[in-house]
Parts: sequence; C-alpha cells; structure tokens
Amino acid sequence: MKKDAICIAFGETVRNLRKAKGVSQEEFADKVGIHRTYIGGIERGERNPTLTTIQRIAESLGVSAKDLLPENF
Amino acid sequence: MKKDAICIAFGETVRNLRKAKGVSQEEFADKVGIHRTYIGGIERGERNPTLTTIQRIAESLGVSAKDLLPENF
Repeated sequence: MKKDAICIAFGETVRNLRKAKGVSQEEFADKVGIHRTYIGGIERGERNPTLTTIQRIAESLGVSAKDLLPENF
Repeated sequence: MKKDAICIAFGETVRNLRKAKGVSQEEFADKVGIHRTYIGGIERGERNPTLTTIQRIAESLGVSAKDLLPENF
C-alpha cells in the first residue's frame, strides 16, 4: 500500500493528540462518529480523509482543522 | 445540494489565491492535474476534497496545505 507523506504526518498528529487526551481509538471513533478501523487507518497514514472528516476529527480533539495539518506540506 | 461551511470557506480561499495569481480555472486545473469542472466545484464549496487533493492545490498555489484551511473550523 502506497502511503502519502501528508497522510502519514496527519495520522501521527491525530494519534499524538488522541493519546495526549488519554482516549482509546474505540472511544475516539464513537465521539467522531467514524468506525474504529477507519480511525486506525487514518492514524497509520493509510487513509486519505476529506475536508469534512478532518474537521470532525479536529472538533473531537478540541483543536481547529488547521491545527491538525502538518507544517511544510 | 447541502454545502459544508468548511468546504465553502476552503473554496473561497482557493479562488481568491488563484485570482490573485491571475490564473484561469482552466490553467489552474491543468497545473493541479484535476478536471476544470472539479476545480469549479471546489471553489463553489460543492466538493469535499481529500487531504492529498488539498496538498496538490496548495502546491500549485505556492502555499502550504495548512495555509489553505480556513481559521475557526
């Protein structure tokens, strides 16, 4: 599976913020309203989320969508 | 067609930056490697682009993907 660098960086940011909040993937998936396996795929950089999915994830993490995007891309 | 506020705001940012560069939708679509009608849909807020599409658009505008995302979302 070819992964895009921006998706990998995005996934790492989501994972770090989620873990910093002490929230499991399961709990986080429920909160965002997305299947847990999709969240796992996002965190591994295997998924290419849309703008509205990025916004929903950001809202659930209490940050802005802009905050979730990695620098230098 | 229900439009998402973040997609509308994103589209306006893309349009403003494209126009500031004096580039037509046609030229811009060629540069990004996306069909002109899809670019038109993005600028009208009717499309929900993925992370990699956001990156390609940003690169073609000479900004970062982060720069393209609207504040307060």
